[in-house]
Formats: sequence, structure tokens, C-alpha cells
Amino acid sequence: MMTSQNRIWTAALVVIGDEILSGRTHDKNIAQIASWLQVQGIRLSEVRVVADDMDAIAAAVNALRVQHDYLFTTGGIGPTHDDITVDSVARALGVEVVIHPEARAMLAEYYKDKQGGLNEARLRMARVPEGSDLIPNRMSGAPGIRHGNIFLMAGVPSITAQMLDGLTGTLEGGAPLLAETVGGWIKESEVADLLREVEQAHPECQIGSYPFFREGKTGANFVIRSTNRDALDSCVDTLCEGLGELGLDFTPGGI
Amino acid sequence: MMTSQNRIWTAALVVIGDEILSGRTHDKNIAQIASWLQVQGIRLSEVRVVADDMDAIAAAVNALRVQHDYLFTTGGIGPTHDDITVDSVARALGVEVVIHPEARAMLAEYYKDKQGGLNEARLRMARVPEGSDLIPNRMSGAPGIRHGNIFLMAGVPSITAQMLDGLTGTLEGGAPLLAETVGGWIKESEVADLLREVEQAHPECQIGSYPFFREGKTGANFVIRSTNRDALDSCVDTLCEGLGELGLDFTPGGI
Repeated sequence: MMTSQNRIWTAALVVIGDEILSGRTHDKNIAQIASWLQVQGIRLSEVRVVADDMDAIAAAVNALRVQHDYLFTTGGIGPTHDDITVDSVARALGVEVVIHPEARAMLAEYYKDKQGGLNEARLRMARVPEGSDLIPNRMSGAPGIRHGNIFLMAGVPSITAQMLDGLTGTLEGGAPLLAETVGGWIKESEVADLLREVEQAHPECQIGSYPFFREGKTGANFVIRSTNRDALDSCVDTLCEGLGELGLDFTPGGI
Repeated sequence: MMTSQNRIWTAALVVIGDEILSGRTHDKNIAQIASWLQVQGIRLSEVRVVADDMDAIAAAVNALRVQHDYLFTTGGIGPTHDDITVDSVARALGVEVVIHPEARAMLAEYYKDKQGGLNEARLRMARVPEGSDLIPNRMSGAPGIRHGNIFLMAGVPSITAQMLDGLTGTLEGGAPLLAETVGGWIKESEVADLLREVEQAHPECQIGSYPFFREGKTGANFVIRSTNRDALDSCVDTLCEGLGELGLDFTPGGI
């Protein structure tokens, strides 16, 4: 029987932004949200990066919100004309866009001493899909938005970090996925048989092999993942023994 | 009438990798491929990051290959057990996996002086979906793979760069999307009306507003995009005039 401890909780992420698809901006939210989810015991299973386009956003939201326990979005919740995430999610859900009174109050407080005050553009940041709750953000006053299992976060990574901080410990998850890394100046093609055999002998573990070129040399890190600490440790030991038997130098923790 | 000059050519990218979804590795291929596509006159319209899972990869490939002119994948074409991209794409296409004789010859040449020679693991890198052509890669011997409008690239960014180099100028595209940036220590919520008005007055242009926090201060870059150089220049001029009229300092090229 699946209990909430051994059931796998999954999340998907929709990154909204022409700036990522143009290559102009390197996304930092995927790694940030993935790492945060791991600690909550939730596995990031899929990411989609879509353009600033209502239909594209709504389609991605509707495809993913039913397939996963949680759906996050980043980007497009600011004050300008290209911030269309709230409207797109409302369309996906078939609900109205409304002004959230608490968000309006938070913005009014934040902007009361600032030039321009709570103008029309800034008030856009109080718009939410009807039925939403707010996710606090101490940095800029503008809150994130929660609607059911959907979480709308900022595009600016430092603001998203604040919103994640506010959500820490509030989402139900399972056992966190643990990981250990072993690396070395090893060609992965020399150890492919070993990796496959060790993984097969440890059914509760997955081994990923991540090659790289650095300082003109070939190396690889082998990442062993499991939700079971004992199984993970045993798998790491077996892999290290095998690398030693092949006469290869390796570094626990990876290089 | 749409000619090949003004028709918009689009591409999608499937990033294959548990290491991205775990947050362990920051993806660099999205920005690299996006920037390369821009120069080819092809627009990156969607990215999906999926797990090292045959069904997930095959589903993403089949959803995207018919919606776009080109489909790229990165990752999972190496010699180890977790490299399952070739098998997944073959499943998606309903074709067999075969050894490509030219790829086998390239690998035999590359590994002839290296320890272990062309072993079974390395020979995995000659496996392709039946009907594929090769994309040369001078760095590691292992080629990329082209099947119709699908391009299978490496996960290691420096190898993917080599493969893109080999493809440069070979894919049909349209007019490249041009971009100019204007930035300043400006709160985007102060200029939201201006941005919307300028964009509406220049129907061939899109304006994106990208706020940031840096050195403890709020700023924003405004990116104007168009395939028409004259329309782009006119839009930039109008935006700069508007910012000047509001008494705001700005920097052409962005900050």
C-alpha cells in the first residue's frame, strides 16, 4: 500500500518568458525551484519554457496541473503590459480575474512613501484568478499567488527565493530524494558496464553519469539517488569498490 | 502571401536530464541553442525539460516535432546505461535502432589509439534511429544525429557547440529577429503606461520589460524586438523620447 511516506509527490514548472527563449537571459529559477522541492520531498518531473503568449501559457498550465501534485510558474506577474500570467491562468481555469483586497492593501502600504504611489500599473500586481490566496514576499511588496495546486512566482530569482521561503514546510511531500556523488578523471565509456551492473544490483537506486570536459581533460561525476539512506550508502560502497578494482582514482563528493 | 522571408520558422527543444530536474546542474544549452537559432532566422518557441524516462522523452518528441519546423534534443546520447535518447526517439518515430556504419567508422578511428579501444559501451554511440544522418563533432568523435526535422545533440554544452557549428547555415530560416535594449535604474511600474503605448504605436515590434535588483537598487531593461530594422529603430527612438520626457535616465544597450 502507498502511504504518504513512500508515495512519490511530483511537481511541474512552467517558465514564462520570451527572454529565456531568446537566449538573452539564462534561467536560474529551474535549478532554484528544483533544489527547494527536493528538500520538501517533492520531485520536479517536467519543466516547460513557453513564450509570453496567453494560449501557450494556458495550454501548458492545463496540461500539467492535472498530471502533477503541484504546478509552479515563474515570470509575468509584474506591472507591465507583457505580464499576462494571471490572465492566462484564469483563462486556463475558467475563472475571472479579480483584485485581491489583501494584495491591494499590501501594495498600498509598500508604495505609500514611494514616488507615484499605488498607480494603475502597480495595482495590476493585486490582480489574481478568483479564489486565490497570496504568497508573501517581503522584498518588493508584490505577493505570489496560490490557486489550488498552482503557485505563481516571480521571474526575478531573488524575489522567487523570498516566496519559496514563505512556502517552506507548507506543502505535503514524501521522503526526500537523497543523492551522493562520486567523480574522477574517468572516461564514462570505460565504466559503462560497471555502472549498469551496480545499478541493477541496487533496485532502490538510480545512477546518473555526467561527463564533462575541464582543463583539457575528460572526467565524469556519477550521481547515485535513492529515498532510502541504507540502500544509497550500500550502492555508493559497491560503486567505489568497483572503480578501485578497475584501478581508477575517484573522489567521494565528486569533482 | 507568406514567402520564406516573412514566414516565421520555429523550433522546439527537449532537454533530457535528471541532473537538470534535480537542480544539481544549471542548464546552459537552452540559452546556447536559442542564441544560435536566432542567427539562423529560427525562433525557439518552446522548451521542455523531461526526466531520463523513455515514455516521457517519446511523448515530448511526438508532441513537438509536428508543431514546429525543427526539434532539437540535448542529452542522453553517450555510452552509459542512462543514455536512452536514441531508443526513445526511435520509439516515438516507430523505427528500429540500427548501427550507423559511418558513425562506427568515426568512433573506431577516434578510439584506435585510446585505452580500451572501441568497446561495447562506446559502440552504443554509433546507434541511431533507422534513417538518420550524422552531425559531425570534432571534439569527442561521437556524432550528433539528424532524423528528418529532429536533431539529437549532446548534453555537454561544449560538444553541443561543436555540433551547432557543423549545422550553421544548413537549416532554412526566415528573417532573423532583431533586438535592441534600453535600460536604466527605472522602476518598471513607473513606465508601464509608456511601454504599452509605444508598443501599440509600433505593431511590428514587441517590447519586453525585464526588472532586476542589483547593488540594492531596482532597475529594468526594456528589450524591443522586430524582424524589421526600420520599425525597430523607430520604436527605440520613440521609447527613448518618452523616457526623456518623464525625466528618467536611461542607457542605450541596457544596463
